[in-house]
Parts: sequence; structure tokens; C-alpha cells
Amino acid sequence: MRLENNFGTTVIEQDIEHAPRKNWHQWLIGRPLQTADAPHQTIGKAIGLAVFASDALSSTAYATQEIMMILAIAGSGALGYVFPISLAIVALMTIVTISYQQTIHAYPGGGGAYIVARDNLGELPAQTAGAALLTDYILTVAVSISSGVAQITSAFPELHIYRVEIAVVMVFFIMLINLRGVKESGTTFAIPTYFFILAMVLTVGTGFFRYLTGSLGVVVNPPAFSTEGLIGTITPFLLLHAFASGTAALTGIEAISNGITAFKEPRSKNAGITLLWMSAILGSLFLGISFLAGKIAAVPSEGETVISQLARTVYGGEGFLYLAVIGGTSIILIMAANTAFADFPRLGALHAGDGFLPRQFTFRGSRLVFSRGIVALAVIASFLIILFQASVTRLIPLYAIGVFLSFTLSQAGMARRWWKSGKLAEGEKIVEAGSVNMYDRHWKLKMVINGFGMVCTFIVMVVFAVTKFLDGAWIIIILVPLLVFVFFGIHHHYKSLANKLSLENYNTPMRVSHNRVVLLIAGVHRGTLAALAYARSLSADVTAVHVSIDPAEAQKVVDKWNAYGDGTRLVVLDSPYRLFIEPLMAFIEGLLKNRQPAEVLTIVVPQFVTSRWWENLLHNQTALMLRFALLFKKGLVILEVPYNV
Amino acid sequence: MRLENNFGTTVIEQDIEHAPRKNWHQWLIGRPLQTADAPHQTIGKAIGLAVFASDALSSTAYATQEIMMILAIAGSGALGYVFPISLAIVALMTIVTISYQQTIHAYPGGGGAYIVARDNLGELPAQTAGAALLTDYILTVAVSISSGVAQITSAFPELHIYRVEIAVVMVFFIMLINLRGVKESGTTFAIPTYFFILAMVLTVGTGFFRYLTGSLGVVVNPPAFSTEGLIGTITPFLLLHAFASGTAALTGIEAISNGITAFKEPRSKNAGITLLWMSAILGSLFLGISFLAGKIAAVPSEGETVISQLARTVYGGEGFLYLAVIGGTSIILIMAANTAFADFPRLGALHAGDGFLPRQFTFRGSRLVFSRGIVALAVIASFLIILFQASVTRLIPLYAIGVFLSFTLSQAGMARRWWKSGKLAEGEKIVEAGSVNMYDRHWKLKMVINGFGMVCTFIVMVVFAVTKFLDGAWIIIILVPLLVFVFFGIHHHYKSLANKLSLENYNTPMRVSHNRVVLLIAGVHRGTLAALAYARSLSADVTAVHVSIDPAEAQKVVDKWNAYGDGTRLVVLDSPYRLFIEPLMAFIEGLLKNRQPAEVLTIVVPQFVTSRWWENLLHNQTALMLRFALLFKKGLVILEVPYNV
Repeated sequence: MRLENNFGTTVIEQDIEHAPRKNWHQWLIGRPLQTADAPHQTIGKAIGLAVFASDALSSTAYATQEIMMILAIAGSGALGYVFPISLAIVALMTIVTISYQQTIHAYPGGGGAYIVARDNLGELPAQTAGAALLTDYILTVAVSISSGVAQITSAFPELHIYRVEIAVVMVFFIMLINLRGVKESGTTFAIPTYFFILAMVLTVGTGFFRYLTGSLGVVVNPPAFSTEGLIGTITPFLLLHAFASGTAALTGIEAISNGITAFKEPRSKNAGITLLWMSAILGSLFLGISFLAGKIAAVPSEGETVISQLARTVYGGEGFLYLAVIGGTSIILIMAANTAFADFPRLGALHAGDGFLPRQFTFRGSRLVFSRGIVALAVIASFLIILFQASVTRLIPLYAIGVFLSFTLSQAGMARRWWKSGKLAEGEKIVEAGSVNMYDRHWKLKMVINGFGMVCTFIVMVVFAVTKFLDGAWIIIILVPLLVFVFFGIHHHYKSLANKLSLENYNTPMRVSHNRVVLLIAGVHRGTLAALAYARSLSADVTAVHVSIDPAEAQKVVDKWNAYGDGTRLVVLDSPYRLFIEPLMAFIEGLLKNRQPAEVLTIVVPQFVTSRWWENLLHNQTALMLRFALLFKKGLVILEVPYNV
Repeated sequence: MRLENNFGTTVIEQDIEHAPRKNWHQWLIGRPLQTADAPHQTIGKAIGLAVFASDALSSTAYATQEIMMILAIAGSGALGYVFPISLAIVALMTIVTISYQQTIHAYPGGGGAYIVARDNLGELPAQTAGAALLTDYILTVAVSISSGVAQITSAFPELHIYRVEIAVVMVFFIMLINLRGVKESGTTFAIPTYFFILAMVLTVGTGFFRYLTGSLGVVVNPPAFSTEGLIGTITPFLLLHAFASGTAALTGIEAISNGITAFKEPRSKNAGITLLWMSAILGSLFLGISFLAGKIAAVPSEGETVISQLARTVYGGEGFLYLAVIGGTSIILIMAANTAFADFPRLGALHAGDGFLPRQFTFRGSRLVFSRGIVALAVIASFLIILFQASVTRLIPLYAIGVFLSFTLSQAGMARRWWKSGKLAEGEKIVEAGSVNMYDRHWKLKMVINGFGMVCTFIVMVVFAVTKFLDGAWIIIILVPLLVFVFFGIHHHYKSLANKLSLENYNTPMRVSHNRVVLLIAGVHRGTLAALAYARSLSADVTAVHVSIDPAEAQKVVDKWNAYGDGTRLVVLDSPYRLFIEPLMAFIEGLLKNRQPAEVLTIVVPQFVTSRWWENLLHNQTALMLRFALLFKKGLVILEVPYNV
């Protein structure tokens, strides 16, 4: 490490050939990586698709079913609307994709909703977008894992009662792989992602072939169609509700824009191409499934998924190909969580770096990932899974509002950016904090595209909030502003701390001219005398203090101190109620009241250090209790002088 | 407080008129008592009977039933042996009572098995007796509370599924009352004890009256007689087994001898009279119940207790008197636990005072009781109740072995004492540690009485261990030696600590001639500079150390230090793996290796003290981690300089 103008500063380089020694930690997540290794920890398009597309692609496993679930309330006749609604959703997806394509190229340094909003709209919209996205990533983990587990329990109903436990174990498994780093988790997850894509393409393809040849037929033994709560009429509200449910398919589209920095150079180009591929695969699979589900007369049910009904109808039974589809779907649903694990910690680190989340989230762990964000995500998502008992139907109304809120804000930010660009003269360039804004010839077209996207996603968000309000969307409508409030609270703390610590206007340097030392003694022995020797090395003004619970004991202490105290003052505090902390606190407070400005009070506590942990249970933890009691006192330092026995 | 030869020692008296201020603690257990109040916290005979007899008396509620349970294995015909076995048990009780009467008068300062064995037999038998008794007191709480709850669920079967919860709540309720002090708990429990005695005397009396007038009859609708596992023949082993089960009636006889110090002066006389009363009531009630149970053809059952069957037969239905008996029995069973709460903490404090249990057990709480022993008893007993699901039948085989082991050791100790007394000349007196041994004219008679008691209780213990071995007695046979081993381990620790701390042969006083101070800095700000000022007041040899995770950050620290460091040395430790503790530890270890004998290393850590607790979550707890990492290092002191913001 080279430092400039370092005068007498010594720099001690670590022996980087020797990585930290092996332990259980390394066995779990791999050997530590150096900070200088960071650029090598990036990924290409093929792995990028696996990491960032699994969330979006996995929606194909449930989006059709969610639409059908809502329509089914109006009776089985309403299921005919599944395909038209799916078409509308794919149209929306196209708009959003084009819109994000523009964002990725404008922000090669990472262009999530948070950065775009911060850059073009201000702090409040940025924090709102961030809070919405963070909430949504947590829900992504909870929903996708619960959904993957539901897929498994479709095939093995006897596992249904263990679904919560299985889901939580899976969350921690994915956490572990992500702690190994983005490159390794990407490689691990690439095979199943491509397996899923293949299996689905084959299923939809075979389905179409059999439909066209007239041999498709309908579902054999479909699950029971629940007639409970049936209303029988198709209302516009119901259609909007179904549309909103289906837009779950769009969640994850934004993932690549948040994760641009994980890509190899040229980042924007790689990320942009990956986004196009992702949208193309997602759109065609989703449309295909919705179309075929109608043709085979699939029935929405909590017992058996629509994908399962489709696969066994297409393949005419529960053979090898059926199992491949079910297996692939379960795995992609679980891996959708992986996208959240890739984005949440990055976004959290951005917030933390700006002082809106605890600074600890900016810390890169031994494998160069933001390990604390990864662990936080796993813990909160597991909590949600337990709270909602891994029920997809109960979790899904909370989901997607956040994403659409961030879509809207991100595109509003982009629209504003193009508008500002139009204000510049040709060739002019303005460098603002973190971004470059320059005149763009096509600014009008680009502004219209982003603006249109904004309007569409805003409408979907409102539809979502209204139709799902009572099902649970209200939780998010309360939670996001609350989070924004907390973020600003944290920011306020860091800002005021920085002001108080600032060395501007630092005119009168602090000084400690007198150190008054109080030495606590419970008895007089070698440990006490070691502490006395240390206390006397700190200051000439040392007072030994003994709290007396038993007069006979106090007499012994006084007698011994007369022999060994070497002239140091002794004060005995009588404690008729056998209390220890209280009389001592009263004494210390008395000393603090008479403190001079440049005087510091130091409390010295002799402490045994036992060689075996359990031996500590055999001693009073006085030092610890005292430390706790004196925590908020000013002008006072406590220290323990250890005495190894 | 008066201290002699105190030279310049200042004694600060506490204002004892003003007891510590009110808080939730006082609201629960009452205002604190001064140490000087101890003599007023003693009890007379009437309250003493309530405190110490409830354990023994409560056995009448189940002893008969336990005998019948065993005999029932040989078929209902074998139930005729209940009364003869009860007679044998009462004979044994008489011997033990006379034997303990002698102990109480010989040891007015508290004459439990532990003290008698320590005094006359040595350390190992004493610790064995103590371990056995402590184990048994824990079981007393578990058994008696479970049994009280079983009594309640006999009356209200719908509560059966909540028995564990009810039992645990009761344990903590009794704990709370005992934390208020022996005087208050005695008064609280006197009324129900006397109520029980009255109810039982009335029931047995009425039963005899009706038996003599020929109007007693038999149990109406007796519980089903389980024919499962029936063997049909009466074997000597079975009779011994039944006898051993019945000796549960003797548990609690020793309680008074352990608790002599709780009595008013003259202690021995008061305690002795209380013991006689207790044995008389216990023996007559137990015999009466066993006799009447046979006459009314009571059936042993987990569903309805024998007492319940007896009461409804005697009173001809489930009227007011029946409910009074059931209520009184439930309460006395629960209060038997109170005896254990009176004795366990006292015995624990004796062990702790001798250094065989953690010293904390000698500490008297705000109400002058050994509060830590009381809490420990409640926690362990609750654990047992949960483990054994509050089943009396599963708990009882563990019970009573410990008591009989302590009976045997205590009486062996007494016999040895009389034998030593016989060796002395008339009027001669030997004062040994804690006890006075003097010539006693009747030493031969007294030795025979105690010796005979020893032989009887030893035989019962062996019978108990053999017959109940497989039912659970093996747990105790393993546990008691294990506890003795742990006790000696603790004793070894205290002894070796005392040796190491001892000032004998303390020739070369320790001195600290040089204090090398290391100041950790994460950044340069007012907090750092406050810590620097403090560090420089400790020593002229101060080195600031910065662990560099980010070179840009390190450059900033160096530049600022050049401006504000006031000439203090700065060392930058490069950390390519973004570790903090490890490079620092390596640096500190290097310093420690080159340490001079009279040199101490002091690590100074600047620490923010935030005004709200949650704000601590926003900072790395470096000081805490460091303290943990450096816990076992020698010649090193860590201190935090707080900076209030």
C-alpha cells in the first residue's frame, strides 16, 4: 500500500501470500479473497442470465395460476379471460423492458431505481424507491421459496406439514451459497436455470404441437374446483384484480439494472443484451402457458399447480418428462430467491454508504460480497415465511406493489433526465454527483418512452393497491413510508454525529491534566496488588474503595491494606442492605460532581482471568455489572486489570 | 460501623433511614432488610411446624397409594399387606425421629447431615450427604408440585392437559413467596398447613367412627382396576418394593435438623419439640389412612387418588367436606415444596461457604434469604417437571434414595460422635472446627440408638436402590457421585485460586514501571482526539494504530493525523482481506513478545456513547469484539474512552 505525505507513518503490509488460517467458516464459504481481487469477481452474459433472470423467469411458474385464481371467483366461465389478460401483461412487459434498456445504458455504474431517483428526483423519492425495492426483495425470497416448496409438496403431499421447516432450511442454504460470492453462486445456479428453460420450452412446444395436431385433450382428474365464495358475474374490478395478480410476472425485470456492477466490462452492453434475452424468454413462456392452460381446462387450486396439470396433460402422465418439469420448476422457484440475494445486499450497501442504513452493510465479507446484507435478508425472509406459514396465496398480495412503485419512480427519474438533457446545448455536458448528463439527440423520444412506461406502471401500482388492499397490500402501504421514516432517522443520527465529531471549529484541543484513579477492592491479594501497581502507574492520585457487606470482612481488608497498601488511601463504603453497585455509584457520583474540567476519573477493577470458561461462573461478574451501571456517565473511564490465574 | 486500627481509612456510613428506592423488585418481594435485622427474621414452633413439616406431612397424601400401586401388581388380593407394611414404616419413622432428636440437641447451630458428616466422618461423606440432600430437595419440589397438580386434576379432569404449565407457574409462585423471607412465607403458609391437618384429622376420625359404628361401607364407583402386567403372586421382592415405595412418608423428617437456625432461641429446644409434634401427626395420619383405605376397598389408580376415594366414602359424597379435604391436600402437596425452598438455599450456602459450590450462593438477597439458591431451585425443579411431564409415578422412583443416603450418613456421623465422646474423660471437652465435643454420660445408649437408625435407613436405601433401579433410581445412583465430583472440582478451583492469590511468600511487590499505550483509531475526529488526550495522560509512550481496509480511507486518516495527531506516532496496518481483529492481534502479539517484565501494554479504544440504545446498532462494536479476542492475553489492559454525543 502506497501512502502520500505520510511523514513518519509506518505502514505494515500483511503477508498476502498467507491467507487467514483455515476454520469452519472457510470450510462453509471458501477461502477469503483479497480486496484487489474484486474485478475478477464479475460475470458474463450466460451466468448473468442465470443469476438475474431466475426471479423473472420463475414468475412463469405461478403468474398464470394467480390470474386464474381471481377469475375463478366469477365461476369457471370467467377463465376464458386468462389469455387476453396475459397479452396485456406482456405488452406492459415490453414497455418496461425498453424503458429499462435505456436506463442501463445511461447508468453503466449501476442504474437501479434508487440511483436514478436520487440522481434526478431527490432524496425522498430515492429513499422511497429503495425502501420499496428492499421490501420487495425480502418478499421475493419468501414468495419464491414458499412457492418452490408448494411445488414439491404437490408431488409429495406427505411433506405438506413440514413446509415451513423445509422453506427455512432452503433460505439458509441459498444464503450460504451466496456468501461464497456472486461468481460461485452464479456457476452453481446456471445449470438448473438452463435446465428449467429447456424443460419449459419443451413442454410449451410439445403442448402447441399436440394442440395443433388436435391430440392435446384436457386435464385428467383435475383438482376439485372450489365453489365457495363464488359470485358468478364478471365485473371490471375483477378483471383489473386478475390483471394486477398477473403482473407478478414483471417482478424481477428490474433486477439486472440493480446489478450492472456484477457484469464484466463492457457492463452496459452485457447487461442490456441479458435483459433482452430475459424478456423474450419470459414473455413467450408466459403467453404459451396461459394459452395452453385454457385449452386443457386447467383448474386453479392450492392442491395442484397449473404447471403440474399442464405437464401431465402434455406428456400424458406422470413420467420422466413430467418429473423433469416439476423438478425444474421447483428449483427455479427456489432460485428466484437467488436474484434477491444478488440485489438486496448491493442495494443495502448503497443505502448504507449514503448513511440511510447501518454502516455495517457496506462491509464486504471474506468473499467480497456484502455478507451482512445477505444474512439480514435470510433472517427477515425466514421470519416472514414462519409468520405466513409458507402460504403463497397469503404472501402474494404483499408482493409486487413495491416493485411497481420503484418502476414508476425509476422511469420518472429517467424522463426527467432526458428533459434536462434537452435543456443543454448540443455537445454540452454536466457532471453532477455520481453521474454525467449530456445532450442527447433523441431526448424527446427517450423521454416519451420512459414517460409512457411510468404512466403504465403507476396505473398498475394503483390497481394493485386498490384490488389487493384488504388481502394484505395495506401492510406494504404502511410499511414503505415507515421504512423511509426510519431511513431518515438513521441518516439524521449519522449526520448529527459527523457534525459533533467534526474537527471544523476545533479551536481548544482537549486535554487531561489530572487523572483521579479509584481502585475497587473486594479483598487484598496478589490480584489486587497487581491492579494497585497498574493504578499507581496511571496517576499519583489513587483511592482504593471497598464496599463492606460484612463488617468482619471489612476489618480484614483494612488490616491487610495497612500492611500491603503501601500508603494508598482506602475508603470503606458501608452497605447495610448488602448492595454493591448502589453505594459505589453514590460515591462515584459525588466525585464526578466535584470534577475539574481537565480532570478524568478512572475506575480500576481487578479481574481474574480464569483458564477455563466455566470457572467464570464461580465468580461474581462485578466488573460487568459496574460497566453497565456506569455506561452513560460522562468524564469517566472504567478498566479491568486482568490477573491470570 | 466500627473498625479497629483503621489508621487513615475513611468509613462512609450509608443513610440507613432511607432504604433503597422503590421499584418493581420491591413491589414483588417487599422492602429490603438490613443485615442487622437478621435475628428478628426467626420463627417460633407454630410457624416452624408449618414451614418444615409440610414436606413430611404431605407424604400422607400419597404414601399409602404408592404402596398399593406396587402391591396391585400381584392382584387385588395383595392389598391386604398395606397396613402391615405401613406399621413397619411407622416403626422406622420412630427410630429416625429419636435419632434426629439427638442430633438437634447436639448441633444447635444447624445439624443437617452435611454438618454432622463433615464434623465426624470427613469431607467426602459430607459432600456425598450434601449432594444427596440437594438432589432430593429438587425432587421434593418436582414431586410435591406434580402431586398437588394431580390432586387438582382429579377434581377437574379438563385441566389435565395443562398440568405441566400449572405446575411450573406454581413453582415460581412459591419461589416468589420465599424470596420475601422465611418469616413472611411461614406466616403465609401456616393457615393452609393447619387447615390440612384439621381436615385430615377430621376425615380419619370420622372414618374410624363410621368404621366402629359399622356404617363405613366401600368406595362407590371405584376407578377401574388395571389388570395390565398383573403377575398374580406375592413375592418377597414385591413386598420390599412396596415397603420402599411407602418410605416416601419419611422424606422430610430431616428438614428441621437442616433448618435449626431459622428457629427462635432456644433453638434446639424449639426445633426438638417441633420435630416430635411433626412425627406424631405424620405417623398417626399415615397409619389411619392406610387402615381405612383397606377397609373401604380403595383402588390405586392414576385417575383418582386414594385420598379422594377415602374422603368421598367417609363423607358419603362429594359435598363441602370432600372438597375441603381435596383442596387442603392439594395445597399441602404444593406447600411441601416450601420446605425444600426453606432448606435447599441454606444447605447450598453451607456448601458454597466451604467452597464446594459457587460463592454466589452465600449471598443474602435484599430480604436476607439466600435468594440465588431459591431461584436456582425453582429453575432446576421446573426443568425436571417439564422433562417428566409432571408425572408423579415417573418422578417418584428418583425420590427418597437421596434422603435415605443422607439419613444413613448423618446417623453414622452421630454414632461416631458418641463413640469419640466416650473416649474423653468425664468433664473433658474438645473444641473442633465448628463444634464442641464433650463427654456424655449416656454415650453408649445414644450411640446404639443412632447406630440402629443408621442400619435401618441403610437397609431401606439398598432396598430402594435395588427395587427401583430400572424405574429411574439408576439416575440418582449416577447423579450423586457426579455431583460430588463437580463439588470437588469447584473446591479445587477455589483452593488453587486462593493459593495463587495468597500473600504468603509475597516477597517482590509487583510494579509497573513502563506503560506502553496503543490507541486504536478508525478515523480522526473529536472522539479520537479525546481518547488521544486521555492516552497521553497515561504515558509518554503512545502509538496510534489504524487498520486499513480501504487505501483511500487510510490516506485520509494519515493526512488528518499529520494535522491533529500532535506528534504522536501512527502505524497503519494494511488488511487486504478486510479483516480487523486479526492484523491487530498480530501487531499486539508482536508488542507483547518484546515486553519488559515491568512493562504493561494498554490498549485504548475510543468509543461513542450514544444517548439512545438503538443508536448503538448503527456502529461497529469493535471494542467489544476486541475485548473478547484479547480476553486471555497476559500483561495487557484494554480500556474504552467514552465520547458522549
